[in-house]
Amino acid sequence: MTRKVNIAVIGTGRMGSVHVTNLVRQIPQANLVAICDIRLEVAQAVADELDIQRVVKDYHELLADPSIEAVLIATNTPTHPMIIKDAASAGKHIFCEKPLSLELDDMDEALAVVEKAGVKLQVGFNRRFDKSFQRVHQIVNSGEIGRPCILHIISRDPESPTMEYLRDCGGMFLDMTIHDFDMARFQIGEVDELYAIGNVLLTPQIIEFGDLDTTVVSLKFANGAIGTIDNSRQAVYGYDQRLEILCTDGAARVDNEAETTIQKGDRDGFHSAKLPYFFMQRYAPCYVEEVRQFVECVRDDKPTPVSGQDGRMAVVLGLAAWKSIREKRPVKISEFDRH
Amino acid sequence: MTRKVNIAVIGTGRMGSVHVTNLVRQIPQANLVAICDIRLEVAQAVADELDIQRVVKDYHELLADPSIEAVLIATNTPTHPMIIKDAASAGKHIFCEKPLSLELDDMDEALAVVEKAGVKLQVGFNRRFDKSFQRVHQIVNSGEIGRPCILHIISRDPESPTMEYLRDCGGMFLDMTIHDFDMARFQIGEVDELYAIGNVLLTPQIIEFGDLDTTVVSLKFANGAIGTIDNSRQAVYGYDQRLEILCTDGAARVDNEAETTIQKGDRDGFHSAKLPYFFMQRYAPCYVEEVRQFVECVRDDKPTPVSGQDGRMAVVLGLAAWKSIREKRPVKISEFDRH
Amino acid sequence: MTRKVNIAVIGTGRMGSVHVTNLVRQIPQANLVAICDIRLEVAQAVADELDIQRVVKDYHELLADPSIEAVLIATNTPTHPMIIKDAASAGKHIFCEKPLSLELDDMDEALAVVEKAGVKLQVGFNRRFDKSFQRVHQIVNSGEIGRPCILHIISRDPESPTMEYLRDCGGMFLDMTIHDFDMARFQIGEVDELYAIGNVLLTPQIIEFGDLDTTVVSLKFANGAIGTIDNSRQAVYGYDQRLEILCTDGAARVDNEAETTIQKGDRDGFHSAKLPYFFMQRYAPCYVEEVRQFVECVRDDKPTPVSGQDGRMAVVLGLAAWKSIREKRPVKISEFDRH
Amino acid sequence: MTRKVNIAVIGTGRMGSVHVTNLVRQIPQANLVAICDIRLEVAQAVADELDIQRVVKDYHELLADPSIEAVLIATNTPTHPMIIKDAASAGKHIFCEKPLSLELDDMDEALAVVEKAGVKLQVGFNRRFDKSFQRVHQIVNSGEIGRPCILHIISRDPESPTMEYLRDCGGMFLDMTIHDFDMARFQIGEVDELYAIGNVLLTPQIIEFGDLDTTVVSLKFANGAIGTIDNSRQAVYGYDQRLEILCTDGAARVDNEAETTIQKGDRDGFHSAKLPYFFMQRYAPCYVEEVRQFVECVRDDKPTPVSGQDGRMAVVLGLAAWKSIREKRPVKISEFDRH
Repeated sequence: MTRKVNIAVIGTGRMGSVHVTNLVRQIPQANLVAICDIRLEVAQAVADELDIQRVVKDYHELLADPSIEAVLIATNTPTHPMIIKDAASAGKHIFCEKPLSLELDDMDEALAVVEKAGVKLQVGFNRRFDKSFQRVHQIVNSGEIGRPCILHIISRDPESPTMEYLRDCGGMFLDMTIHDFDMARFQIGEVDELYAIGNVLLTPQIIEFGDLDTTVVSLKFANGAIGTIDNSRQAVYGYDQRLEILCTDGAARVDNEAETTIQKGDRDGFHSAKLPYFFMQRYAPCYVEEVRQFVECVRDDKPTPVSGQDGRMAVVLGLAAWKSIREKRPVKISEFDRH
Repeated sequence: MTRKVNIAVIGTGRMGSVHVTNLVRQIPQANLVAICDIRLEVAQAVADELDIQRVVKDYHELLADPSIEAVLIATNTPTHPMIIKDAASAGKHIFCEKPLSLELDDMDEALAVVEKAGVKLQVGFNRRFDKSFQRVHQIVNSGEIGRPCILHIISRDPESPTMEYLRDCGGMFLDMTIHDFDMARFQIGEVDELYAIGNVLLTPQIIEFGDLDTTVVSLKFANGAIGTIDNSRQAVYGYDQRLEILCTDGAARVDNEAETTIQKGDRDGFHSAKLPYFFMQRYAPCYVEEVRQFVECVRDDKPTPVSGQDGRMAVVLGLAAWKSIREKRPVKISEFDRH
Repeated sequence: MTRKVNIAVIGTGRMGSVHVTNLVRQIPQANLVAICDIRLEVAQAVADELDIQRVVKDYHELLADPSIEAVLIATNTPTHPMIIKDAASAGKHIFCEKPLSLELDDMDEALAVVEKAGVKLQVGFNRRFDKSFQRVHQIVNSGEIGRPCILHIISRDPESPTMEYLRDCGGMFLDMTIHDFDMARFQIGEVDELYAIGNVLLTPQIIEFGDLDTTVVSLKFANGAIGTIDNSRQAVYGYDQRLEILCTDGAARVDNEAETTIQKGDRDGFHSAKLPYFFMQRYAPCYVEEVRQFVECVRDDKPTPVSGQDGRMAVVLGLAAWKSIREKRPVKISEFDRH
Repeated sequence: MTRKVNIAVIGTGRMGSVHVTNLVRQIPQANLVAICDIRLEVAQAVADELDIQRVVKDYHELLADPSIEAVLIATNTPTHPMIIKDAASAGKHIFCEKPLSLELDDMDEALAVVEKAGVKLQVGFNRRFDKSFQRVHQIVNSGEIGRPCILHIISRDPESPTMEYLRDCGGMFLDMTIHDFDMARFQIGEVDELYAIGNVLLTPQIIEFGDLDTTVVSLKFANGAIGTIDNSRQAVYGYDQRLEILCTDGAARVDNEAETTIQKGDRDGFHSAKLPYFFMQRYAPCYVEEVRQFVECVRDDKPTPVSGQDGRMAVVLGLAAWKSIREKRPVKISEFDRH
């Protein structure tokens, strides 16, 4: 049997605890040796439920442990650059939840440390690991339906998060659209220019901190294709995640899966189920698969499937979208090039 | 330009007036020279609306007219054999609405006259002319998905007809299932044996004259395939017309078309349209196509696409289904062979 | 019986002959008294096929005939303003094919004459008469799923037209997108601002005259909703016509209808039919319905369902899209206000 | 925290090892204390992979252990009655894989011992625990769409099992249809009479031992509803599991889920994914849920959701279907009543 990778998880909140559970139950390639949260009681509760032996409050303790090869960072976004730098400096391979950072400078500094340290970095763009999105990627990239012309991504949450969450999340483009920016790059390639429009049609309270709840971004890709990303904080019929790519000789489309395949017919017509409530359900297998692949990359010394540059570009596209909104004009992505 | 076929329509009730309208508006290959109904005022109303010059009460008048090449019979079922015999004896080609007859002896006598006279006969099994059922026929018969194994036909009316209609229609198997028996033969071939079950679950009034409103017939075909036909007088979500054929290397299926392709999503899920209300809507193009092809067969002296034997066998299968119900046993179709 | 409206058709090319056929066969409310084409032989051929008595070469002849109440204009676009002015001055009610004009000044002049003459004008935006788009309009406007947030229109032709056609059609935005601009206004209301992007990915020959074959327009509506229109000259799987509207409490979507409802299953999965080839098939009932309603508006002296202002605004949006492409910036529709 | 139920698994072949894995990973309500297989090395391999401490060869050893409250029996069918009797006599609660037995006498003897011992018995009809079938059950039983009229079950394997498997499985009706008989009873209620037809169209080798690979059973239910079950050993497009129930005021239907929701469009039309390969994928969550509910019934002393009588009736229906085939006639279920 091949060796297991010793890994620790830093941050055991909503996403962190999902990763912890997956590592224990579904990723035999990994050996979860410790978990960490500054709210020690939160980490302890997770550890109790899953029989995890080692729980620490300060992540430096884990970085000092030479038996730990890799860390999975699922803390608050503002702490990402710092922990990445510390972990890279300690020679640990890193899986970091998205977004890498909301600040370009901090992020670039962290990426520089990672590069210098020569450790692996993977960013948590889980949707790339969905079997449907992967199959579309394969169809489009095989050329069997010609060259891509128009991309559409529809990505809508079932309901708005809390005001507390919204206040610190980076706003629509860095919290929600960032996933779709990464998907756009995954499917079509680099974006050359974008133009964003949006409005507040659902939760007027967010106007005070300048956020939007209904947005459309139009994209020009470097390869000549064009596209749109449409986002909303509220699709009452469930978590709406669709994508389609028109190519010169065909098209490929990912549709939603409903909660059940039941159809009820009556005098009013036919009635079918809502969509799965939210990302934890819709993308459950992706959260397992992305970490499994990271662990195998560490074990077998292979490049990670989602790089630091991928993480950076998604943030850049989010920042460009906000710039487009502020300046009411199309924005070239080259305006954000590293100097 | 090719010559037009002179045709007359006998019987201008519900189905007859549909054929009249189609002949006038959509079948330029025909020249509708006269229409006939013993209820002269019914025929006259149809004639007025469509600017038809000649209206008669007695069909013998039309049979005596040497300029008329063909007649379309859409009178009450009990009159079919007699009119067929008279028309054939007068040398007219015949399109006759289904069922040919409810009585085997009368029907066989009429078919014998047709054969002796050497005129063409086509029976109004309109569904054979539906593009979807034709395409399935083509797929299955091409062998591209192997040999047929299991046929399913689902055929349900949106609501029960009137008691008056039900009293004289020949009951479920000769009124509704007869279409499906013909479809089964069209798709798979001759039936060897059938077994029928049924119940009265919708309109208790029909018990008095021994009819059923909910039935299932299971079929063994001569080629080894098996199948079922399911019928109901009431599918409140609309006229339900489906078929599927499992073959050794695949399957082919015809699904319903809804009234619109609209989906409405809300907090309860997704809602889509009912099915088209009834056969006049669902099979509208078939009523045109069957008569167009009949007219062309007369014009070009070709065999008709639905023969007298096809018409006979559908009736035989209907009679066999009733026999199966009465005798509570599987019935061989050979029990109805002509002696 | 109510009186019939005497109407004449000017221009009997592709669209004109469709209208002529519909008027003869399917619109009993109208009395088609004459048809006209400067290519007299073209008009004569149409007349022969449909038994139309009066055929003229010069439309002025028809305008001089006091028995003619209304004209349907289906000539080349550049001739629309002139014929509209002449017909309005002659007191004829007017149905004019889209686009009203490619030139704003000519169009405004023609609209002024129409207004002064007090005749009715309807523009041929046939898609408004599609049962599915009408039902969505009704759902969205009823408020049953809240206020509209995001509109998507996908509108793709199966294949590029000829170079000859492309050279004079006004380019993508005035030839294809104009229908979608009208649909956007029909469903959501006035557009406040738009931004267009596009590329030439299919037919490089069109670069010489500055056209595009792949475009996306993003829209801001006056009521706060946002949206996109995506167009392509080539969807090899058939004529792709979809629309969806996300609202605060739900969504409504129009999907395509396939040529058949057949599904074939085999070792590779399931296979279903292409979309109907083109607009003549997809929108056939709309071409009848729009003219039927126009005729009834003339007969009953009611306002037409698609006004001259509707025709004007669709052209304005097309011109704005071209301006956005040329100037690489979002364009306010108010830039095109009449002074 | 509530107490855990001590359980042991007897038989660790294909199905047994699935249950073992589920008990270890996904059913925290249970404490899997031991596993058993007469092929000790098979059990040991499973134990090694999942870190199970106790492995035995002889199930009597487990029955003698007072700490074990319940056993899950997943051995060969012929051993079921004997092990059930031994386990019941030892006071253990029992979860037994389907079918309970292929012999009516043995089965009835075992059920009598269970009844006398007063232990709980659940039979492994996993499909009852599928969310879609459960939702249909709920819709139909609520009466919201009226009374049930026609049931259809389509249940087709992707490919035939090995000859070895086929030789001992009880044939089509006791191996495959047995699941559908249980589903029919779950959805509609007791069957009054059935009639079966079938043929060998796929694997001629099975003729020698009298099996069928293509069958249709028609059903009369005690409540007046009727129905059909269609089975095939080979649906090359994947594991086909559908059900629909027509009721007096509507219908409810469970359709298949495809492997992905991708649609690829090209010049030939649209192409979508095959169905999931087989029952382990399609019904994975049901295997967990049925055992979880059994464990909770033991823990909380509640009746099991699938009773011994349910297990018996499914076998009776299978035997009746074989009798119908042999005697070529409809068979009353009352012919199998216990005396």
